[in-house]
Amino acid sequence: MESENKKNSSVIILHNALIVTMDPQNRVFRSGAVVIKDDTIKAIGQSTDMVSQFSSFSPQLIDFEGHFILPGFINTHVHSSQQLARGIADDVDLLTWLHHRIWPYESNMTEDDSYISTLLCGIELIHSGVTCFAEAGGQHVTGMARAVQLLGLRACLVQSIMDAGEGLPASWAKWTAEECIQSQKELYKKHHNTADGRIRVWFGIRQIMNSTDDLLNGTRDAAEELETGIHMHVAEIPYENQHVMERRGVRHGTVTYLEKVKLLRNNLLAAHTVWVNDDEVSLLAKAGVKVSHCPAAAMHMLGFAPVREMLDAGVCVSLGTDGAPSNNRMSIVDEMYLASLINKGREVFTKGTTDPTALRAETILKMVTINGAKSVLWDKEIGSLEVGKKADIIVVNPSSWSMMPVHDCISSIVYSMRTENITSLMCNGRWIMRDKRILTVNEEEVISMAKRASSDLLKKAGIQIPSRMNVV
Amino acid sequence: MESENKKNSSVIILHNALIVTMDPQNRVFRSGAVVIKDDTIKAIGQSTDMVSQFSSFSPQLIDFEGHFILPGFINTHVHSSQQLARGIADDVDLLTWLHHRIWPYESNMTEDDSYISTLLCGIELIHSGVTCFAEAGGQHVTGMARAVQLLGLRACLVQSIMDAGEGLPASWAKWTAEECIQSQKELYKKHHNTADGRIRVWFGIRQIMNSTDDLLNGTRDAAEELETGIHMHVAEIPYENQHVMERRGVRHGTVTYLEKVKLLRNNLLAAHTVWVNDDEVSLLAKAGVKVSHCPAAAMHMLGFAPVREMLDAGVCVSLGTDGAPSNNRMSIVDEMYLASLINKGREVFTKGTTDPTALRAETILKMVTINGAKSVLWDKEIGSLEVGKKADIIVVNPSSWSMMPVHDCISSIVYSMRTENITSLMCNGRWIMRDKRILTVNEEEVISMAKRASSDLLKKAGIQIPSRMNVV
Repeated sequence: MESENKKNSSVIILHNALIVTMDPQNRVFRSGAVVIKDDTIKAIGQSTDMVSQFSSFSPQLIDFEGHFILPGFINTHVHSSQQLARGIADDVDLLTWLHHRIWPYESNMTEDDSYISTLLCGIELIHSGVTCFAEAGGQHVTGMARAVQLLGLRACLVQSIMDAGEGLPASWAKWTAEECIQSQKELYKKHHNTADGRIRVWFGIRQIMNSTDDLLNGTRDAAEELETGIHMHVAEIPYENQHVMERRGVRHGTVTYLEKVKLLRNNLLAAHTVWVNDDEVSLLAKAGVKVSHCPAAAMHMLGFAPVREMLDAGVCVSLGTDGAPSNNRMSIVDEMYLASLINKGREVFTKGTTDPTALRAETILKMVTINGAKSVLWDKEIGSLEVGKKADIIVVNPSSWSMMPVHDCISSIVYSMRTENITSLMCNGRWIMRDKRILTVNEEEVISMAKRASSDLLKKAGIQIPSRMNVV
Repeated sequence: MESENKKNSSVIILHNALIVTMDPQNRVFRSGAVVIKDDTIKAIGQSTDMVSQFSSFSPQLIDFEGHFILPGFINTHVHSSQQLARGIADDVDLLTWLHHRIWPYESNMTEDDSYISTLLCGIELIHSGVTCFAEAGGQHVTGMARAVQLLGLRACLVQSIMDAGEGLPASWAKWTAEECIQSQKELYKKHHNTADGRIRVWFGIRQIMNSTDDLLNGTRDAAEELETGIHMHVAEIPYENQHVMERRGVRHGTVTYLEKVKLLRNNLLAAHTVWVNDDEVSLLAKAGVKVSHCPAAAMHMLGFAPVREMLDAGVCVSLGTDGAPSNNRMSIVDEMYLASLINKGREVFTKGTTDPTALRAETILKMVTINGAKSVLWDKEIGSLEVGKKADIIVVNPSSWSMMPVHDCISSIVYSMRTENITSLMCNGRWIMRDKRILTVNEEEVISMAKRASSDLLKKAGIQIPSRMNVV
């Protein structure tokens, strides 16, 4: 158990733990300590050294004997507004998924629905060790921002943006490119750098088939002007590439077209990026585009992303959960496990057998920490435990049936750890979860609100889920 | 929370729950009750009817309002003796895995190691809702049996059997086919139908490359004589089929050869069964062979099993976790989620896109319940909640962040549920877990024993795990 020496001090020392820093030297302290003042890591090193070096500050000492300490995980593709839609579109084809479930759901949401959905999603993120997430795009950024502020998390928020496309809900079909850019600039002004700097606002592009060239160009320039990022779904399905080739006259697909309109740049976070050829992988690498690989959603609906090829080419690949209706589980802990399995298995199709040595545990741990930080353009402040970085930290208790025995601590974290093992989480120097209890929101209240709101929303949107069995 | 009315009665009624029976009519009671006397289900039906109908027995009433009740899950491929080896062979190639990690580990085990390993494995099985498992084959059946007896689970135990093959540890290389059969007959005599009938003893064949024809024939006849099952690893890797073709002169692989030696029969449980062609799928279906599909191990080391083709052909396919060094997580709950994702994703290679409608949730739930029961030749007594069957039951609390909101209870169980949601488990009419606390063994004591035993065993076997990072 975590034991604590409470003192009235602004210096906190988490000590006696195995610390996986994810710093450039890949240091792991067998018995280490992290010294925190306010929101910042002041020092990190051997436990005994740290405790004696900072004793004059009368620090609050927290003994994490037998625990692991890591940087908070970064989930780089999260539809926080879709949390209330978990289970509304399981086992249905892609058109039913989009036109009869997701679009009616999203287009009927209020700001309050979005607030509640992000709260519920945030609870799942916290339990799975996430301190920072990149929103993939929803309708109500103000609702999301209220939730993130309250949860105590760090996030890059994004509005869902479309100015073209077939079969859109009426309320969405009327937006012009200019209105899209203007709306996002206002959201930027209102929310960027709020919540003690934990909230940043990015530009969003839902996907290329829902974007005019005016929107693509305007987004590129506005993000450059405001020095922020762009989050876009890229090359999700074969049909998307075909559509781009037919309508936009390029030789391959979305990535090739984005190069043409100068959108491949180092502030672009490309989600999924499944259907890309070797030339396009080179283009991504050369431009410094970041890729969010979402293993569960890829298997469920998209296909096998060329993760090995992208990593080999030098692309910064991170991990995302996507949204609840694409995944069901919103746990980056499960995505680490999945990323390993799927990318080992995928080698069957090139090598004739799976390759158990593909995508090693240490690479996956990089993907959810320092690569995640680079993907959200925040790596100067988060993604590793280093002096001067923000105190975004998780504590893992490996001493339970789910991880024991631990013979290889890195692979244990990546392959065996479950959400059950993540006991405490700090973001920006503040405890958000201790001993598995979330301190910033009341979980039961959020769940009650979510049950009510989601049920009302489905009714309003006219979504009916057929029964699978003989209910009596 | 579960609430209880304790009475001194041998009749227990679990009521007010949503009950997924998995019976032939696929009935789900929205507010149902299960009536249990001793080890058997006496009645099942609407909650109010059951409570009034059995009131004269002064039953013990347990109110499971807001909970789901299901048949206990059946995990059909478990190396319970490999639990202490979790993490000893991550990210290494198959030859290193086998010759430098698993064989040294297994060949150095004592009966006590096996006992401790099965205890630790059993704890993970219980937390993941498993009431019955099929052992895949280990060295010390007596050690396993002691553990299963204590844990209160149901199991088909199997010795690891080989009488041929290259590079085997010295202590294994000396066994003759006759000794193998004799040893298993003795184990059958000693342990079959013990522990109130919860333990059955099967015959094992590790895999075809480690078996002479005498062993295959002898196993077939002995299992027939004793009316028990045979558990065998089948068609795991392309090399195995090639080996069988070259050495045993058949046109395709292991399944084709097993047909030739009359081992394809309805008491054969074939694990993995990845590398089989259409003709072999037909042979499996025709003979009534049962297949244990192990999604994680398949991705990790073997390949994509043709699960859709097998199900379409009428093969009874169930799910297994395999052993900890092939999987890391030993949770059938995770395997359900994985089975969906992997088999939806696999369709990319035949259809050009994944198929989100492939392997539906209700099929997966069948695989871990009634198909599991058929696979372990126990479906007259377990695998569904029906009058006259044994009371093997799990209780799920869906009211937490990990499953909420529930719009589709079946897909929620299969895709969203985590081990956290499984609160109580009964096997053979006896509570083994209540409110997530295991009642039959002391978890902390087992974990302590396991840490010590696994560390000693690795030293004895000379297994060293290289460090992945810069430990200071």
